[in-house]
Formats: sequence, structure tokens, C-alpha cells
Amino acid sequence: MLREVTLEDIRPIGIGAGILGTGGGGNPYLGGLHLASVIRDKGPQPLVDPLQLADEALVCVAGNIGAPTVSIEKLPEGTEMLRALRLLEAHIGRRFDAIAIAEIGGANSMQPLICGLQAGIPTVDSDSMGRAFPEIQMSSFLFDSAATAAPLAMVDAADNAAVIPAAVNDLWAEKMARNIAVSMGARAGLVGTIMTGAQLKASGVHYTMSLAHHLGSKVIAAQRQKNDVPQVVADVLDGQVLFHGKIGDVHRRTTAGFARGSVRIDSFANADQLAIEFQNELLIARVNGAVAVTTPDLICIVTAEEGEPVTTELLRYGTRVAVIAVPAPPQLKSETALEVVGPGAFGYDVAFRPLPGGVIGLRPAE
Amino acid sequence: MLREVTLEDIRPIGIGAGILGTGGGGNPYLGGLHLASVIRDKGPQPLVDPLQLADEALVCVAGNIGAPTVSIEKLPEGTEMLRALRLLEAHIGRRFDAIAIAEIGGANSMQPLICGLQAGIPTVDSDSMGRAFPEIQMSSFLFDSAATAAPLAMVDAADNAAVIPAAVNDLWAEKMARNIAVSMGARAGLVGTIMTGAQLKASGVHYTMSLAHHLGSKVIAAQRQKNDVPQVVADVLDGQVLFHGKIGDVHRRTTAGFARGSVRIDSFANADQLAIEFQNELLIARVNGAVAVTTPDLICIVTAEEGEPVTTELLRYGTRVAVIAVPAPPQLKSETALEVVGPGAFGYDVAFRPLPGGVIGLRPAE
Repeated sequence: MLREVTLEDIRPIGIGAGILGTGGGGNPYLGGLHLASVIRDKGPQPLVDPLQLADEALVCVAGNIGAPTVSIEKLPEGTEMLRALRLLEAHIGRRFDAIAIAEIGGANSMQPLICGLQAGIPTVDSDSMGRAFPEIQMSSFLFDSAATAAPLAMVDAADNAAVIPAAVNDLWAEKMARNIAVSMGARAGLVGTIMTGAQLKASGVHYTMSLAHHLGSKVIAAQRQKNDVPQVVADVLDGQVLFHGKIGDVHRRTTAGFARGSVRIDSFANADQLAIEFQNELLIARVNGAVAVTTPDLICIVTAEEGEPVTTELLRYGTRVAVIAVPAPPQLKSETALEVVGPGAFGYDVAFRPLPGGVIGLRPAE
Repeated sequence: MLREVTLEDIRPIGIGAGILGTGGGGNPYLGGLHLASVIRDKGPQPLVDPLQLADEALVCVAGNIGAPTVSIEKLPEGTEMLRALRLLEAHIGRRFDAIAIAEIGGANSMQPLICGLQAGIPTVDSDSMGRAFPEIQMSSFLFDSAATAAPLAMVDAADNAAVIPAAVNDLWAEKMARNIAVSMGARAGLVGTIMTGAQLKASGVHYTMSLAHHLGSKVIAAQRQKNDVPQVVADVLDGQVLFHGKIGDVHRRTTAGFARGSVRIDSFANADQLAIEFQNELLIARVNGAVAVTTPDLICIVTAEEGEPVTTELLRYGTRVAVIAVPAPPQLKSETALEVVGPGAFGYDVAFRPLPGGVIGLRPAE
């Protein structure tokens, strides 16, 4: 696994995290610029092997909550997460030992590195999704665990702050935090999901920061060598290239804070069609009308030549893409987990059809 | 002034607070039932003379936040404010000495009595409006004072809780608290606006609980004696009966959490018209098209015979009413205050035209 994150690691992590974002999770580019400035100031950020974490260590997640579209237009003050961390520490009367990653997919790959560096504590190489999902309760740290989303703390770019000491359940914590984020201009730093090291070991999707870095490095190398980049992505992720084609149609509407819609991709021979439904993330893929991939399995759209991630807000007519299907990590496929991140949780009347094989994450040795 | 609130005091306080609610503030009836059950359990609730409060005493307000319409349908668990009080005490690391009244008008007249009884501390006979207003920042405790709305704590009927440790200003505290209240099903107990005794003395509208009680008692007596009840209301409040008539038309729409609209009242001879614009509370009154009363001055609609308060949601064609105009307390008419509670703050392009004379509140001797 990766032992620390240096300036040189930011670009590959950004590409890998972008692909793992499955169309959502926000763009890691601005977060990468922010991380670079913090690394220039304080040096590289150490990563902790999750399996080496002390059982009694106190860990929390740190990231941004809000609308990805807003995060491009409204820049952060820069210390939102650090201030939220200190606020939560004051609330519980204890200090945190390390920061875990809420979602490796998209922009929230960079935030736990920034927050850890600012707070002077390491980042754990483990996240709760192995991909991106839009809501707080969609977290393997919470599915089959005694950990809860609240207490949590939120701080915005000005001096607004909020603490949720307790919630009826994680869905209620999400509802309150989401409305607070709206009051904060749809962008805030959030720190919560307090866990022990033992709980993180049992529930996390491990080594996904290393995976994002490895994936991004392979993409960059394949681009230089003019290799088949989409195939390289599929190989690294233990997935398969499901489809090659050209975007033929996009339907999009923004409702209740989500970018909902569908995209149709036509094969180059125009013989086959792939239709994908999305809500921020790409969730259901149908080939010629037949369900082929279902959430929580990953649907990743990359550009046909460069293998760069295409987020749902950038989908447009004519783009030549490849679509890669990747089996979700097992933590997302338990009965409890599927109630929260399966097709039904997003309102689709489709059963989860797991793709064969595949375990996201790198072994510690790599 | 009233020295304590007993079972017998609840009805007069409810009538007086209803009239001072200027059409909004919610119905005190259910809160009165709740208060009665707590008084039966714990005895009467002592009132503190605000001018006798120690300068260094620590005081906060306690009340309900949410939609008055919801508060009729969704009953409280009963200890929301007490739990919010304890949460705020834990957050600041100090205990409160007394509870002040956020708004004497409407349902929030009863809540500081309930909360004080449950917490074992007295209620201060002083509020921040002398009437009702819909938002947290509309408070004389905040206008020309160093006190701030945050820190504040909110708790709902279940186990959801939130603390706002800090806000950029009181308007931002309101925005966050309002959205949290929405997450909590549009009803929550809220404790905040922490003050010293010295700050409360300098900023409060004093003896308004006594005033509500006195007003309600006079109304009940006048009803028994078949006197002109609207005139009695006007006399007690140092106001004037502006209009007698029958409701001729009501326009109402619920937007952004407010019951907005207008009501037309026709004189019995049908010669004159009174038009009132409202947003929860009655805010602007025009007689035959000419502006006659403007917020923060009080516009109170009562039934023509019984002099009972008519809230905006109960306005309907054909009701015979009297409209009473009452000068607002001076604390609401400073330059700072008018920016927050004057006609412009509610979007009306009308200048504030103060009614002559009048100071709401009873002298301590009465």
C-alpha cells in the first residue's frame, strides 16, 4: 500500500478516485489543488494501514457535504473540516487519532488527506464505499456496525457551525445534516461517524486510497504507451469493459438536490444500445433493454481514448466512451447494506443482480 | 406583577397572549393543556421580576420553533425544551438561572413556563417582542445588545438533537435553525439567546406575562358583564379600536413556510374598508386604501362580541370582528430594530408610521 501522499501522488489519486466516483462524488481537481497547497506547507500526509490501527484508536470521517455543482463555484475557506473536527472533539471531550475516508470516489478522496494534515493526524487507508454514494447513511462503517453517523459537526466557509449530538438513526442524521448544508450555501465541512479502530477494521473497504493511486498510475502509464486504457481500468478493478460507443441522448433534471436522469450510448455499429439511469452516480445499466448492472456494483464511464472519468454532469451527445462494470466490495452487498444502497433504496423496481467475482481493494503487500 | 402562574392563570394568559399574537404565534390552547398537566405535577411556576434579576444571572429563552399549523397536529413528547436546555448547558458548561420569554404572543407564552417548571428554575416576566414575530432574529434581546441567538440547542419529539455553537449573525442562526426544524418535522423545542441578567434588563419588554394575564382577565370579566370587550382590550393595551366590520374576503397562500395573504373587512354600513396584509402575523393595515398601521405596531383582530383573538388561519368570510391598533413597545422601534421588524423586513414598500403613544408592559407595582 501507499505509505504517504506526496505532491506527485495527487494526480494519479485524482484520476483513480474520479473513475471510482461512478459518475458522481464531485470533481477531485479543486480538492487536489487545495491538498497540494497544504502539502507544500506541511509535507506529505502519512497513511495508516487500517489493519495496523490500534483497536482502541478513535477515528472519524471528514469530508465535504453539499452539491458537487456548488463546490465548483463556491470555493472553501480552507479550514472547514479542521474547525468541524475541533468542534466535535470539544463536544465529545476526546481527541481523534486518525481520519478515515467517507467515500474514495470523487472529491471526498482529497478531503481526509487535507483534514489529517491540518490536524496533524494520519489518514487511514480505508473508506466506507469503495466508490461514491450521495448520502451519509450509505456507509459500510454503519451497515453492520455499532457506529452511528451522529454525533457529527459541520462548519461552513464563514463562522456558521452546527453539531448534531444524536439522531434517531443514520437516515435522520442525513436529513438534518443535509438541511444544515443547504443553510450553509450547499457546501460545508463535515466530521462524524466516530469509530474505534476495531470497528473500522471490521467494516471498512480497505486500501482504497492505494487502489485509487494504483488505478490512476496505470491509466497515466497506459495513456503514455497508447495502450487500451479502458481495458487497463477494467483489469485493475477486476471488472469488465461492458460497452464501447457514442453518447446518443441525455435526459437530465435536477430535483431534490440530485442530478437525476438517463443516458443512452449507441454502439459504433449502431447495433446495440446501453441505457444508464443515474442519480448523481450511475446506478442501473441496461444493454438492449436487459438489466446488466445494478447498484451497488460500479458503473464507470471513461473516455474511449484516454480512459479519463466522465461525470454525470459532463455527459453530452457525441462523446465516445467506454463503460466498465465492476463488482462492488462485499461490505456493500450484505442484506443490511442492500437496503441502503441497493436499487430499491434509489426507487428502482429492479432486483440487485450481483456481477460475478471481484473484491475492490488492494492487499497490504502491494 | 403576577408572582406565579397557577392553574387558574392559564386561561387568562392564553386569551391575552392570543390577542398579543396579532394573528400569529400559534394557538396557546394546547400549550395551556400541557402547562396545566405540569403544574398539577409540580405546583405553580414562579415568575421573576426582570428588574430584580441579578446582573450576573445566566438566562436563555425557551420555546417551540416550527409551523403553527403542524403544532396543532403533531403533539410534543413533552420534554423537548428541557432536553434542549440540558444539551445547551452541557455545551457551554454552565447552568441557567432562569428562563426568559422569546415571544409573549401566541403559543410561546406557555412554553417558558413549562420549561422552567421542568428544569426547576423560574420564568422571567419579560419577553423580546411584546407580541409575536415569526423569526429568531426578530428579538429585542438581540437588537441593540451584545447577546446573540447562537449558541442554541434544538430537540425533537424523538431522539434527534442539534446544537448551533456559532453563527455569522442572528439571521444565519435563524436560517440554520429553521432548516433543522424542517428536518425535525416542522416542530422542535429550542433553547438559545443566552443573556446575563443585566442584558435582559436593558433589552427586554418587561412584565408582558403579567400583561397577558391582566388583559385576559379583563376580557373574561367584560364578557361576563356584557361590556364592549374590544374597547376593553384597546384600553388595557393603550390602543384604539380602529375598525368594526365583517370579513368580506380572504386571500391566503402558504409559501416558504409562511401563511401569507390579505384580508378585507367591510364596515357594517359597507361604507369603509379595512385591508390587512399578513405573513403569519398581521403586518400592514390600510383604511380605504390609506396606510393606517404598520409593523411593528400591533394589529389585533378580535371577535366583535366576545373579544376573543382571531388568528390568521381562522380568518373567514362573514366573521364579525373588531380590529385594534396598539403602539409597539419602544424596543421594537429603534433604528436597528426597524431594520429587522419594520415593513421593509417583510418585503413591504411602506415606511413605518408609528402610532402615537403607548408603552406595552405593566409597571412592577400593578
